[in-house]
Parts: sequence; C-alpha cells; structure tokens
Amino acid sequence: MSRYHVKDVALAAEGSARIEWAQRRMPVLRAVRERFAAERPLAGVRLAACLPVTAETGVLAQTLQAGGADVLLCGAVPGSTRDEVAAALVVECGIPVFAIDGEDEDTRHAHLEAACDHRPHLVLDDGAEVIAQLHSARREQLGGVIAGCEQSATGVLRLRALERDGKLAFPIVAVGETATKRLFADRHGVGQATVDAIARASGTLVAGATWVVAGYGPCGRGIAGRARALGARVIIIEVDPLRAVEAALEGHRVLPLSEAVIEADVIVTATGSRHVLAAHHLDLLRDGVVLANAGHSNVEIEVPALRVRAGDGGLQRVRPGVDEIALGDGRSAFLLADGRPVNFAADSQPTLVLDMALACHALAAEYAVRNAAVLERSVFAVPAEIDREIARVELGALGIEIDEQTAAQRRYVASWGLEA
Amino acid sequence: MSRYHVKDVALAAEGSARIEWAQRRMPVLRAVRERFAAERPLAGVRLAACLPVTAETGVLAQTLQAGGADVLLCGAVPGSTRDEVAAALVVECGIPVFAIDGEDEDTRHAHLEAACDHRPHLVLDDGAEVIAQLHSARREQLGGVIAGCEQSATGVLRLRALERDGKLAFPIVAVGETATKRLFADRHGVGQATVDAIARASGTLVAGATWVVAGYGPCGRGIAGRARALGARVIIIEVDPLRAVEAALEGHRVLPLSEAVIEADVIVTATGSRHVLAAHHLDLLRDGVVLANAGHSNVEIEVPALRVRAGDGGLQRVRPGVDEIALGDGRSAFLLADGRPVNFAADSQPTLVLDMALACHALAAEYAVRNAAVLERSVFAVPAEIDREIARVELGALGIEIDEQTAAQRRYVASWGLEA
Amino acid sequence: MSRYHVKDVALAAEGSARIEWAQRRMPVLRAVRERFAAERPLAGVRLAACLPVTAETGVLAQTLQAGGADVLLCGAVPGSTRDEVAAALVVECGIPVFAIDGEDEDTRHAHLEAACDHRPHLVLDDGAEVIAQLHSARREQLGGVIAGCEQSATGVLRLRALERDGKLAFPIVAVGETATKRLFADRHGVGQATVDAIARASGTLVAGATWVVAGYGPCGRGIAGRARALGARVIIIEVDPLRAVEAALEGHRVLPLSEAVIEADVIVTATGSRHVLAAHHLDLLRDGVVLANAGHSNVEIEVPALRVRAGDGGLQRVRPGVDEIALGDGRSAFLLADGRPVNFAADSQPTLVLDMALACHALAAEYAVRNAAVLERSVFAVPAEIDREIARVELGALGIEIDEQTAAQRRYVASWGLEA
Amino acid sequence: MSRYHVKDVALAAEGSARIEWAQRRMPVLRAVRERFAAERPLAGVRLAACLPVTAETGVLAQTLQAGGADVLLCGAVPGSTRDEVAAALVVECGIPVFAIDGEDEDTRHAHLEAACDHRPHLVLDDGAEVIAQLHSARREQLGGVIAGCEQSATGVLRLRALERDGKLAFPIVAVGETATKRLFADRHGVGQATVDAIARASGTLVAGATWVVAGYGPCGRGIAGRARALGARVIIIEVDPLRAVEAALEGHRVLPLSEAVIEADVIVTATGSRHVLAAHHLDLLRDGVVLANAGHSNVEIEVPALRVRAGDGGLQRVRPGVDEIALGDGRSAFLLADGRPVNFAADSQPTLVLDMALACHALAAEYAVRNAAVLERSVFAVPAEIDREIARVELGALGIEIDEQTAAQRRYVASWGLEA
Repeated sequence: MSRYHVKDVALAAEGSARIEWAQRRMPVLRAVRERFAAERPLAGVRLAACLPVTAETGVLAQTLQAGGADVLLCGAVPGSTRDEVAAALVVECGIPVFAIDGEDEDTRHAHLEAACDHRPHLVLDDGAEVIAQLHSARREQLGGVIAGCEQSATGVLRLRALERDGKLAFPIVAVGETATKRLFADRHGVGQATVDAIARASGTLVAGATWVVAGYGPCGRGIAGRARALGARVIIIEVDPLRAVEAALEGHRVLPLSEAVIEADVIVTATGSRHVLAAHHLDLLRDGVVLANAGHSNVEIEVPALRVRAGDGGLQRVRPGVDEIALGDGRSAFLLADGRPVNFAADSQPTLVLDMALACHALAAEYAVRNAAVLERSVFAVPAEIDREIARVELGALGIEIDEQTAAQRRYVASWGLEA
Repeated sequence: MSRYHVKDVALAAEGSARIEWAQRRMPVLRAVRERFAAERPLAGVRLAACLPVTAETGVLAQTLQAGGADVLLCGAVPGSTRDEVAAALVVECGIPVFAIDGEDEDTRHAHLEAACDHRPHLVLDDGAEVIAQLHSARREQLGGVIAGCEQSATGVLRLRALERDGKLAFPIVAVGETATKRLFADRHGVGQATVDAIARASGTLVAGATWVVAGYGPCGRGIAGRARALGARVIIIEVDPLRAVEAALEGHRVLPLSEAVIEADVIVTATGSRHVLAAHHLDLLRDGVVLANAGHSNVEIEVPALRVRAGDGGLQRVRPGVDEIALGDGRSAFLLADGRPVNFAADSQPTLVLDMALACHALAAEYAVRNAAVLERSVFAVPAEIDREIARVELGALGIEIDEQTAAQRRYVASWGLEA
Repeated sequence: MSRYHVKDVALAAEGSARIEWAQRRMPVLRAVRERFAAERPLAGVRLAACLPVTAETGVLAQTLQAGGADVLLCGAVPGSTRDEVAAALVVECGIPVFAIDGEDEDTRHAHLEAACDHRPHLVLDDGAEVIAQLHSARREQLGGVIAGCEQSATGVLRLRALERDGKLAFPIVAVGETATKRLFADRHGVGQATVDAIARASGTLVAGATWVVAGYGPCGRGIAGRARALGARVIIIEVDPLRAVEAALEGHRVLPLSEAVIEADVIVTATGSRHVLAAHHLDLLRDGVVLANAGHSNVEIEVPALRVRAGDGGLQRVRPGVDEIALGDGRSAFLLADGRPVNFAADSQPTLVLDMALACHALAAEYAVRNAAVLERSVFAVPAEIDREIARVELGALGIEIDEQTAAQRRYVASWGLEA
Repeated sequence: MSRYHVKDVALAAEGSARIEWAQRRMPVLRAVRERFAAERPLAGVRLAACLPVTAETGVLAQTLQAGGADVLLCGAVPGSTRDEVAAALVVECGIPVFAIDGEDEDTRHAHLEAACDHRPHLVLDDGAEVIAQLHSARREQLGGVIAGCEQSATGVLRLRALERDGKLAFPIVAVGETATKRLFADRHGVGQATVDAIARASGTLVAGATWVVAGYGPCGRGIAGRARALGARVIIIEVDPLRAVEAALEGHRVLPLSEAVIEADVIVTATGSRHVLAAHHLDLLRDGVVLANAGHSNVEIEVPALRVRAGDGGLQRVRPGVDEIALGDGRSAFLLADGRPVNFAADSQPTLVLDMALACHALAAEYAVRNAAVLERSVFAVPAEIDREIARVELGALGIEIDEQTAAQRRYVASWGLEA
C-alpha cells in the first residue's frame, strides 16, 4: 500500500475548513496543543491512531503532531470516515491517513496493516483492532510498543480478558473508562447524537413513541434519558440486576426483550454484546419499527437474519441510511446505518464532548511516554489528575468559576478523629 | 405567470418517494383521505393553500384533491420549499404549484398573486399572506371567498386585529389555535425540530450550554423544555407577567434580555414580535453565540443590524445554513437560516405532528364548506369535535386504548345538585 | 346554631401563630390587603365563604374584612379544617366560623345552613355547596345575592350545568378556571402536595414504583409529572381522547384502568367523576397497593365497596390517615385519608400557590361588587387583568424583572398588514 | 449505665407496630432474615450497631439476632432516634438499646461507651464513632474485633485516612460505597427525603424557588435533580472540577457560594465538609431564606455563627424543627433541624432504600465473619456479588423480570480476538 490511502486529495480544502470549525469549539484540545508545541513531549514517538476520521480527530492528530509525534491515522468504525478530513490531513499536515468512507472489509484490513507497518511506539485505538492485530499476526513487533490507549468500553473489556489470560504484551490506558469519557462522551455525547440521528433519519416525533433501549450502561442511560425527556415511553432491557434496578428506580419500565419488542416503535441496542436483537424477535415486531445500534460494531442487531427474512427483495434503501425490510406479512422494519453505530452519522457528534474525550487521548499518550519505564503490562485507568485537568479547562470554556476548599476544610475532611 | 412555477419537474420521482414515505407515517390524514374520496365534501370548491411545500403538505394537497377540491399550492415561509415535492405535485397530481426554494421577494410576490388569480373559495394560509393580499389589493374578490383557515399563531393575531377593526370580510377558522396545534405541533413538533436543528447546524452539545429563549408561548415552552431536558441551562425572556410566572414555576430563570444575552451560548426567538434581538444587544454577546429564530418570519432577529455590524466583510457562510458575523472586537456570532424559522430546515419537522396539524386544515375546510351558510365574519376556533376526532385516530395509530365514561359517571359530572 | 361553632377557642393563640407564619409567605394577598384597607371596596357587603379553613384562608378572611366585608366562614372539604385557625379567626378577628375537623354529616349540613343564614351578598365557594343550597332550599334568598365565586373545577362544571338548564340565579366568577388557578394551584400546588402526602403517609419511595393516575386535567398532570420526576413509572387513565394523546406525547403510558391496576403500586384519582376506582377493580389489585384521591369530594374511590370487601374486620387504621383493607386472599390495599383529597393533609399545601389562588378570590369579589350592575347571570372567567395583576405581584416576590414590549413591537403585533 | 437506656419502655407496643409496618415493605431484609434463621451465620458473634434507631433499623436488628448474633444497638445521628422503636427492641426482642431522642452530648457519649462495653466482635457504624472510640480510648479491645462496617461516605473517608496513617486495626467493609448505597439510598432516598422534609417544614412551593445545593456527590445530585424536577431553579456549589462539569452538563448553574447565596430561597449542604455556609455569608442572605443540611453531622452550616448573629434574642422556634434567626436588618433566615441532617426528620426516609442499605449491612456482617481469617486490615468495598444479590431480590419485589445473557453472548463479551 502506498504512503496514504484516501478517497480524493482534492477534498482537502473542504476538510481544512471543517477542522478549523471544529477547533474553534474545542478549547481543551486547543490548550493541550499550545502546551505540546512548547514542550514537545512526544518527540521521536511513532504513533498509530485508529479512530473515526472526523474533523475532531483531525484536531487531535494535529495536536499529537505538535507534540512531536510521527502520526499515522487509520479509520475505525465503518461509516465514520469524513473523506474531506482525511484529504486535509494528508495534504495540509503531511499525515499518512488510511481511511475511505464505505471501504470494503479487505481495504479495511489493509488499512489496519498499514497502521502496523508504521511500527508504532504508541497505539491509540477504538475497538482494540490494531492492538489485537499486533497481538496476533504481528507478535514480533510487540516489544517495540510502549503503550496503547483504548477508547471504547467494549475494547477495554476485551483487553482485560487478554490481561486475565496473561497475554497482554504492553500497558493499556483505558481511556474509555475515564470519568470524562463515561459521563460526557458516552452519556451526553452518544445520548444526544443517537436520539438526534434516529429522529432525523426516520422523521419520527420522539414524543409519544415507545423506545426500547437494550443496555443500561452510560450510553444506554444517556439515550434513555434523552428519549424520555423528549416525550418517549422508554423500556429498558438489561441482563445485569444492579443496572436493571437502577433503571427501574429512574422510572423506566424494565422488561425482557421478547415482551418489549411487541410495543416498540424504536429499538436501539447499546450493550457491547452480540445478536441482541435476533432472528427470533422478527415475528414480534410492530409494523414500521425503527432498528438502530448505538453500541459496538455492527453485531448487536443480527443483520444477516434481517437479510434472510427480507428474502429475494433484499433490503430496500428508502432514504439515506434507512433500509426497509419486508417482514413477510405486510409488516416492515426500518434498519438505520446498516446496523452500525448510528451516532456516527454525519455531524451528530457534539464537538464539546469529543474535545474532552480526545484531549484525554493526547494526555494519556503523554503520560504513557513520560512513565514508560515504570508502567506495568496491565489495563489501568487514566490518572485522576488528567480527568481533573480536562475538567478545569472545560469549566473555563463554559465560563464557570468554582470555590476551593479552605485549608481548614481540607484538614477536616482528611481527619479521622472526633475532633469536629 | 404560467400554469405552475417550480424549480425542475425532473425532480418529480424523488418527490413522489418523499410524499409516499411521509404518507406512511400520517395515519390521521390517511383516514381523512379515505373518507374524503368516498364523500367528496369539497366537490367544486376552488382552494388556494399557501403553506410550506413539504412532503407532508403534499399529502394534504392530495387529500383535498381526493375530497373534490380544485387545489392550488403556493409556498409560505421562505426556506421551507422542497423543490422535488413541488415537482411531484405538478407532474403526478396535476396540482398547480408556485414555489421555488430560495425564491426572491419579487418571485414570492408573484406566487401570492398566482394564488389570488385562482379565485379561491377557500384559503388555507400560514402567515395570513394570501388573506391579507385579498383584503388589500384584491378586495373585489372578497365576496367570492367562503372562508379562510389560518395556521400560525401570529397570523391569527393579525386576523383578530382585522376583525376588531371591522374589516374582516369572510370567516376565519383559527387552525393555529386548536388544542391539537398548540400542544402537538407547537410544543412537541417545533420544540423537537428547533433544538435538533440548532444542535446540528452548530455542532453544539446542548448539555452545559446556556440557551436563552425569548417568548414562552407553546413554541418557546417546547424549545425550553427540550433544551433543558438535554442538559442546557435555560433563561426565559417574556413580556407577559403570567407567562413569566409560569416559566419561573417550571424552574426556568427569567431575566430581561439585556441581562440574559451576556451569558448566552444560544439565543432563540419565538415571540411573534419584531426586533427582539436588536442592534443594541450586539455589544453584549459572548464570542461564539448562536442566533436562531423559531418564530415568525425573519423579523424577530434584527438581521439588517447584523449586516451593518459585519461591515464590508458581510456575513460569512461557514457551514450550510450558518453565517458568521464578526462583531468587531474579536468576537463572532453565528446566525442560522438567515434568521428565518430554523425548525423548517430540511427533515427536522416530525411527520406525526404535521399529520395532526394538516388533518385539522382538511377537516376545517370541510367544516367551513358544510357550514358556509351560517358562519359569521369572525375569527373562530376549530370545533372541539374536530380536535377530538383527530385525537381519536391518533390514539389508534399509537396503539392506545382508553376507557369511556359510564352512563352514571356522565350523569354525575353533568349534574349540579348535591345528590352525590 | 350559636354565633360560631369551632372546636376550642383556647386554640386561638396557636392559630394566630400559624396565620402569621402563612402571611409572611403570601406576598400577593398582603399587597391586596394593604390596598383593601385603604380603599374598602367591600364596605357593607355580607360575604359567606365556604372554604378549607387553613392558615392561608385565614389570611384571606382578614383581607376581606380589611376591605370592609362582613365575613362568615364555614368549612369545605372534609378533613381540611385546622381547628386552631378557626379558633383564632373567632377570637382575634371576630369572624363567625363554622367548622370543626372531623365533623359529621349533620354538623356539616348545619354549618352550610349557618352560611345561608348569614344572608350573603357574595358567596365564595369550593365545591358549590352553599350555592347549590341557595338554589334549592333557600330560593327566597337568591334575589339578595350579587354574585358567587367558585374555586373547584368540578364546582364550575356543575354551575355550568345549572346555567345550561336556565336555572342559574346570579353571576358566577369561575375562580377555578383562571390561568393562575389552573397552572399554579392545580398543577404545582396539588401536584407537589399530593405526591408528598402519598409518599409520607405510606413511607414509600416514589422511585421505582408504578403510579396510576386517573385523570389528566391540571391536577392529574401535576401529579403525574412530579411522580415521574421522582422516578415513578406512571400510567395515565383518561376518557377524553385529546387529553389521552397529550399524556401519550408527554411520555406517559395510557391504558384502560382495568389493565393498569394490575401493575399499580399507587393509584390516585383526580377526575372530578365518581366511582372511578370501583368494586370490580378490587380483584385485580396488587398486594400492598396504596389508594388515594386528589380530586373531588370522597366519591372518586368507591369507599363503600371497600368496606363491603373488608367485611366484618372493617378498615384497620395502621398509621395516621392510613387504613388497611384485607382483600380476602392474603392481599391488602391501603386507603389514604378515607378517600378524601389527600393533598389537604396537614401542611402539605404550599403557601405560595394558595396565595395566588386566594388573592384571586379577593380580587374577583371586588370585581363582582364593582360591576354588580352589569354582570349577567352566567358563569364567566376571571378578567385577564386580575390574573396579570396577580402574576405581576408574584414576580416581584420572586425577585424577577421582565422586559416590556416597545411601542414599535406593540404596533407590529397588533397590525394586520404586510408592512413588516 | 444499666442494661439498656431508652426513654420509656411503655412505648413498646407502638414501636412494635412501626417495626411490623416497616418489615412489610422490606422484602430484601425479609429474605435475608429467613435465610439467617435457617443458617445462623452469626452464631456466637457479639455485635454493636451504632445506627439511627428507626423502625427499619429495628428490622435489621431482628435480622442480625435471627442470624445468631448477640446484638447491642446505640443511636447515631442526633435527632434520628424513634423512642418507641427503641422501647420495642428492648421489650420484645431483649436487645439492649442505648438511645434517646434529644439526648445531650454526655448521654450520647455514655451510649457510645455502652457500645464499647459490649466488647463487640463486629461493629456496624454510621459516622465511624464507635470505631473511632475503639481506636482511641479503647485500644486494648482492638484485638477482639473481627471487622467493622461503615455506612456513611464521610465515615469511610475518615477510615481511609486512618488506613493511610497505618493505624487501622481491623478490616472495614465500606458499606457506604456500594452501588446499592450510592445509587439508591443516597441518590433516591436522601434526595426524596431531603426535598420533602424542606418543603414540608417550610411550607414552601418548590416550583419557582431558587435552591442552592452545596456538594454534587450522590446526595447532592439526588437533591438537585428532585428539586429541579419539582420546578426549582437550582444552583450547584462544588470544589471538585469534575463534579462541577458534571453538574453543568446536567443543566445546573454552577457558581461560587458567595455569588449563589444572593439568589437563594433555600440553601442545602451535602458536602461532608465543615462550615460550608459560614459567618461571612450571613450578610448576603435574602430575607426568608431556608437553611438545611443533608450531609454530615451538624457542622456543614456554621450554627454557632448563626447564634452569635441572632444575639440576645437567640434562635426563635417558629414551627416544629424550624428556628428563625434575625439577621439584624429586618431580614430573617430559617434554620431547619438545628443544622442536623434534615432527611432524618420523622417518616421521610423511604423504607425501600433503607431495605437495600440495611440488608447490605447484614450481608457484609456475614461476609466478614465467614472470611475473618483472610481479610486484611484495610477499607474495602462490599463484594459485587452482595450488591447483585440485593438487586436480584429487589427486582423480584418490584415485579420485574430481566433477560439473561446467552452462552454465546457471554463468550463473545469475554473474548479478545477479532472472531466476531
């Protein structure tokens, strides 16, 4: 494969405008970039980032470059690549980008290979795909890797499994589990973007519709809360009893999926698991139901089963990103975004949460390099101080001032006696 | 002007697909259409509709035609015309349509003239423009008009002023004041569509931002409620003390506009008044503030003052539908949709509320024709039975069954004695 | 009957303290009282008020007296009388009060008779009981009555029935239908007080419980909104299709009552109708269900049917205001406040909303006297200016300033042309 | 001190009725009790519990006794003791109780001594008072203690400080940090109880009032969310930037306290810190402001400074649990519950959350005994399986069924490869 692989370098100007627009709304990453330019903490570091190639990721790539890193970018999450941003990064920044919107599986795989060929010291991953590749087909490179940062909750789960099996070959910063990420990116960002994308794609009024949300982690909670706030009747599907009680105490109905689908106008999956909406549910669906995934990859909805059911007619594209599936007895279902994360649909990710999530990547990368000598081969949390630092900059951007504890209060809280 | 005036009849196929898609999600109008086709209540009636030319309006036009009316359609609300729908109505239904997206003022005026040239017995209006034209330059036609239906709250306000002045020449059904319209279309429809359009156009996370909403009528209330539900800090501007108390009791801050703008990340107008956000506020705006109108016409934000302030540079289009205005000291503001109703941006109006609102037009038209002999020259409410009928069909579409009062309960509630 | 009838005049000091406390939190009525004391608009007017005898009503009674009226007060709504307030009004203000907490039906009737014996020019009523008595057993007094003010929605409904039958003998101001009353007293006041009273009496966490709310008028909407806000799963029962759609679009489930009771942890009635929860529902109730009424009188829950079901054991008082009913197969239900409005339980009515509602009575009384000559024998709304005036004073008390329309804006909104 | 110390053993019958009522609403503890009675896991264990002596704690005490423990109970949190419950436990269960509502500091201290005199193997604490006493004046007993369970977040914080200093003498189960406790007891229980207690005590409508909530931990979040849901305008005070951003993204205003108090109608502290509302704020308070603490002990509001300000007049009790403080220039403030946790006011703690929190104590006690041999001298979390078990029983009580992962899904989630 050549030095880069994007759709059309002629799109660079348009991409630059988008990156420029994004950057104006990303105060945290802007602050990091200024400091990185001065301190160059990543000088000499080869870095492969496998992330959705959006304008915001473009700002991250420039930031890492400003910090001295030799950055390569390949696309993650099918359907998330903005070709014009990819072009801009190649043309304007000289960053090798391997990502094309709608690429087929072979091309996708070739792009992952290109990321490995970069022989990275650091890997920023979203779904642990480069990291998994290094641990399987590229084991000879493992020694050269200082650390990885993993963004998705599902990716972190898998890397923990790898650690448990004693096979993890380098330290992993679980960017996907920071407070910043869970609270802001997952709950607020994914929540807003998912509900917005579904309402738009289907032209549906959220108010009055029954939304079934499978999974009550941070994403599911964000989606459920927003849908309800917009007037939906929400039903939660969970397999974990604690999360199920939590959902119930927050006022949601909690049902087994096979009971819930009967009432559903919209079904959204956000579980990190596979075949949550499966072949055996198809007979229970209401006519006109909208099916969307806001979770992991494209496996939460059993799309192959939908194709089988649709038969010779196949899936019929009725609007951009919307396929109709004839269920065989007059009923239809509508599948959004091919069952891929619907929140990555163009323009629906709010810049502000991406700012915090991506700044966390940059700071975690710096942390890993600075502490390379002492980090263990385990999956560990982003240091709390990084979260707090991001929060501090973000507060400033929101124009919010807060109090500080007095010295007396600090002493009081840290004491253990009865001296109060 | 010729028999119709649309952008490109070649767009008809695309338009038909959109109308077909809309129709599947409009159970109320579908039910009305079936009955109209059987009963032909509008047979022989010339009808001019001046409405946003969207897929949903297309379904209405077909319904009126099915009822026997000789329908003409011209565009209302600049920026709301879908050219492919206009084409489809001309080509597939033989309906004369006069509407082109982005038409200039002269063309717009010519289209209003074409509506008057149709010599309508019935006028369906959104902003009272055809009705005002008939009452000024076309007074000779007034005698031929059976009735008008007005959709917008502001239009109704104006027609009431006309009635007070003793100048109203035919009966007006205030479609814009039905319970269906206020509760569903304004609160839910405009609410969802406006917040969605602003969040999308600006790429902003609603959570954490300060939204200033001017006007706490049904639209403002819907916008404020949704913005808050998505995590915004909301400030309400009102001139009516009752509405101001209502906003305060619903937990919103209520401030004079000149105090509120200082904190605003987003300012939305929904007042029906003029120059609400005016020249003298510009020095108080935060850098990056987003300005949007969800109210009447394009006069609520004093756009000319923005042009003056922008100076020679003028308004800079930075994204589709987003103009940047340099405020002169490093600060910028972003104006959405040229100050026109942002909720009419493509695809953001939920079909379900349009279904109820437009069905109300169809049923009000039927009512006016059936009662032509007895209606007075006044502005009057849609009969409650029409509202209830729409609600009944809609409940069925939502799959909801309700109880009925028992005979004993009906007697009890209607009694005035102490016999309980 | 003697000059007054209260439980114990020795309670006067305690009652005075309560009235004094209430008055500090009633800025609107305080302002009215000051003006009344100066202007004496009710001089020479005999006035009978049949209202819940609470501290707040005490402030109203003093206000009416300050305005020159010869006030008599009798109790309305069984269970709502505060004996110490009744004592204070007798002892400190010389107001004849006829009200004893827990009075039996005969005593209650005697108190209504005492109110009629006052030969009132004005009647302030809550449930139309004095007004109904005047229209039946006291027809000879009807000529002497200038007007009545009716507070409850149900009472207004009945007086409308009387008007329709051509039997209404004097004008009625529908205090119960002002914006102030519906929005503030019903939605906010009844909403907060009802949810609070139920949660307290039953010791139940609202979060996670299923609340069935029968009736989606202002009271039901307030209760449902608050219960949901506190984490309940809410189901609405309605017989009106418009209100049913409204509930559905606000995200509530809407079901027939016989389906809903199966899931209910709490059932609240707020319909104004009779036997809403009836004998035939008892077999469907869950063990431990809490039954409460927040609507009209004590007829919404069919209490006699509960007594029949309880059999010889009868209703067992298990906590103050809570009776257990053995349903016969191991299941129990708990009835609150004998099926009377649970929101009148001691101290649960927020003073602020009572301030606005009761100020409306005072101003409506003044309006009726000032316009006695021209009022027709009909049920009519409180003049909008009274509502606005109350709102204005209330805004001041909340420390809120609002904008005023400019002259140009006033002209713009009132115009009907195209001159924008 | 004698064998027990309660107010009046004659109250036992009333107390028994309360415990019986509570037990009916505590399905989790009921299930634990049944198992304990069969398995006797605490046989031979001396256990001292220092907890609020409420009906629900009574059910816990009986459960521990059923498990074989020799239980002693002393009161924690001044103002939380129900004398009739204390009496019932002594008389009916033979449990030595040392707790009297309104006891003075000396008596309180004597009760702590009595708890130590019991020479407990296990300590259940709420505020770490018995544990602190053992670590200071009773060091000779430390060797005999198997473990402690600490309920409050503040107590856990202190015991962590003790551990950091290397002085912790026995293992501590941080009952206060379980998911069950934080989500349910803190967020839902404290949230509902606090808002309810403040609204009741002050007779205030929550809607329209400005509530300042200091502290955005689980309790503060619960209070803020409920107050807003009831229509309050909420302002959050935080010293932690992450929590401050979280509050902002959930739509709250975040301000320094000295700016916020100027607008406050209600100020609630829930920080775990000291003198949060301090002397220097008093000049900024609005007339009529209500001051309440829902956090730790009685130190969050600087009550001594209020007494100084009130001068010779002192605090004036104007209603039960409400003191008025003349601020010196016509303004007054109202202090609730002497600055002690207002959520412990009688009857405002929902039984359901106490059920889960107290069941956690019982199960943690069992866990500590079963694992006595291997537990380290550290503060550790309640094992996740206990949380899940509690959640499972609670789901059953709520009548909720949930799905289980399929074997294939479990494999998928636990895998690390690309085999999807």
